[in-house]
Amino acid sequence: MFSEEHKAAGVTYPQGFTAAGVRAGIKKSGNLDVAVIYTEKKAAVAGVFTKNQVAAAPIHVSKIVAGTGTAHAIVANAGCANACTGEQGLRDAERMAEIAAQELNCKSDDVIVASTGVIGVNIPMDKMEAGIKNAVKNLSREGSVNAGNAIITTDTYSKCCATEVEIGGKQIRFGAIAKGSGMIQPDMATMLCFITTDADIDQKLLQEALSEIVEVSFNMISVDGDMSTNDMVTVLANGAAGNSKISAKDDDYKKFYATLEKICRELSKKIAADGEGATKFLTINVNGAENFADAKQVGMSVAKSPLVKTAFFGEDPNWGRVICAVGYSNVKINPGSTVVKFGGIPVYAHGVGAKYNDSELKKIMAAHDIVIDIDLGIGESSATVWSCDFSYEYVKINGEYHT
Amino acid sequence: MFSEEHKAAGVTYPQGFTAAGVRAGIKKSGNLDVAVIYTEKKAAVAGVFTKNQVAAAPIHVSKIVAGTGTAHAIVANAGCANACTGEQGLRDAERMAEIAAQELNCKSDDVIVASTGVIGVNIPMDKMEAGIKNAVKNLSREGSVNAGNAIITTDTYSKCCATEVEIGGKQIRFGAIAKGSGMIQPDMATMLCFITTDADIDQKLLQEALSEIVEVSFNMISVDGDMSTNDMVTVLANGAAGNSKISAKDDDYKKFYATLEKICRELSKKIAADGEGATKFLTINVNGAENFADAKQVGMSVAKSPLVKTAFFGEDPNWGRVICAVGYSNVKINPGSTVVKFGGIPVYAHGVGAKYNDSELKKIMAAHDIVIDIDLGIGESSATVWSCDFSYEYVKINGEYHT
Repeated sequence: MFSEEHKAAGVTYPQGFTAAGVRAGIKKSGNLDVAVIYTEKKAAVAGVFTKNQVAAAPIHVSKIVAGTGTAHAIVANAGCANACTGEQGLRDAERMAEIAAQELNCKSDDVIVASTGVIGVNIPMDKMEAGIKNAVKNLSREGSVNAGNAIITTDTYSKCCATEVEIGGKQIRFGAIAKGSGMIQPDMATMLCFITTDADIDQKLLQEALSEIVEVSFNMISVDGDMSTNDMVTVLANGAAGNSKISAKDDDYKKFYATLEKICRELSKKIAADGEGATKFLTINVNGAENFADAKQVGMSVAKSPLVKTAFFGEDPNWGRVICAVGYSNVKINPGSTVVKFGGIPVYAHGVGAKYNDSELKKIMAAHDIVIDIDLGIGESSATVWSCDFSYEYVKINGEYHT
Repeated sequence: MFSEEHKAAGVTYPQGFTAAGVRAGIKKSGNLDVAVIYTEKKAAVAGVFTKNQVAAAPIHVSKIVAGTGTAHAIVANAGCANACTGEQGLRDAERMAEIAAQELNCKSDDVIVASTGVIGVNIPMDKMEAGIKNAVKNLSREGSVNAGNAIITTDTYSKCCATEVEIGGKQIRFGAIAKGSGMIQPDMATMLCFITTDADIDQKLLQEALSEIVEVSFNMISVDGDMSTNDMVTVLANGAAGNSKISAKDDDYKKFYATLEKICRELSKKIAADGEGATKFLTINVNGAENFADAKQVGMSVAKSPLVKTAFFGEDPNWGRVICAVGYSNVKINPGSTVVKFGGIPVYAHGVGAKYNDSELKKIMAAHDIVIDIDLGIGESSATVWSCDFSYEYVKINGEYHT
């Protein structure tokens, strides 16, 4: 699972999917910036979209496509978010689907559209048209790496994964590409994730699974607390594996669900670890909460605290900032029953600082991956939030660019 | 009003108040660190305290003192927050009040206690005892400046103000000292504010006025979104001005209220402008909201966004980040009816970017004080939030310190 070989395959690891990423001149850097993912066999589609009320044009278009329940393709670009672009923006997003549909011999409402990049700028549609046409020409079973690179911005690498699971005697494959925070012209921390699978699954079940899984994966990461106008996660399931269709919540569904969840968690962690300017990957486990929502809220409060994030950047075991963020999380807690650990070492317990071995803790703070355990000592529920630190580089990436 | 002469007077500007600030060796820097404010004439007292559930020991003690309705003194220190210090911390906070009471010949429940500094460290009580005794010996009508300096941490200057108003034919004076975000050993962004007045006013009215005013002043600032374990605002009103006691919501009360509000807003702005590492002072006016709570929530969403804050640090007129933060504020908005202005210049209007003169906007972004106007175009309510930018210096102050 998640072998290097599979990773390279990404969204084209499942049967029947091709992909491409090309240079269309939309990114100022001249890097790959238009991606197309395609399945000739029509796929069940599920999508989860940003809750930001200032949603970008492609979000509006893709919601309609996802609403039809099936799709053949995804067309995506980086370098321009097509957000806050009014009627023209909507027309441009629709046109992206139309161009792809024409080239792929399908209908425009079979094409998911996604964009990430600068807000308030219109897409250069001449470049886009040429780019989509070129991408379709280049569709191949080896195209996932280029497609992945065509959707990243300030990400330091393209996030992808691939895996497989046996369901009903058939090998079911999954692949995915995702991008995290940042822009070549830093504007928004957009999160895009495209997942493919050759499983045959009922569309309603697929959507239900995705919606549930997003809550415990992508919705559990925070780089800087800013929810983008363009966030999107979609799954295309084309049924090419030939399994007997998953149409009830049986063992097959559970296997499918577990695998999809694993992929989403894996990519979520990668996105958090590659947050803008990040030097640390923080896993915040909250246990002993009354319910999941409380546990998540406490974890997010800690994950979003600039004081906590800068402390970890400085490798300072400043547990006071962590317990402070727990205290103002708006979740009813009891300082006296709360325990905080860094890398398994208790640093705060039952109202006061815990005694710890300085050199042991120093080693933990110096590592790239740090686990923060927060036990509220109230209930039985837990949640895990993934985050990163706040560095000079974050300020540089987001402050030094001039529009 | 707020003349330089008055400012120097600070909390000792009202009749009957004395103050002192001394070096007790609690701050590692050796700077002033223990302050006492005193009124021989017993004062009505009102207080508003942090809502952080991990509240420091002095918060617990001072809530009880404020609950009695009257007080003679405030004893405060910087350099040690006395937070997460358990039973010992509570005993130390109580002992601070006892020592001051003994020296001042009053009862220990007449003494408000406040601390700011490192979390999880016990107060060196021998130093504290000597410090309080020394401060009481040095109480004077000129002691406000030293008292103000004894409560600051990474603040670049002590915030204070003084003013007067005529009520019922008597000159009523007000004075205040406050501290904002930061620590000599950066740990918490503690906000402390001590206000004095020689007005004679009913304690319940005083508390009601303060509680209301805090909502539109101190609770409208955000430096980094972290709510401290030690935040506190108190007012002492000793009646030395000899006005006929304010005991109803009449014109006298309104005058008193307006002046107290002015002081609290003035100090709030100073605290925001002197946020850790701040290079810009941001005033975020939200208009056209359905109610105050909505307007505040939108303003806070923008004020707390690291992407917005780093953009202003970089003097980048990145309105996309502002409208994005409006969009995820959880307040129901309509992108089509929303207008955003920087320094009075529309940058986003009705769903799309507005055309503006680049060089004009550049001048606005280069200034220290920048006004962001957000008109939601929905209702009639408004709110103003004060904030600052996010700089390398913020990361340095909070990341480079090692406990």
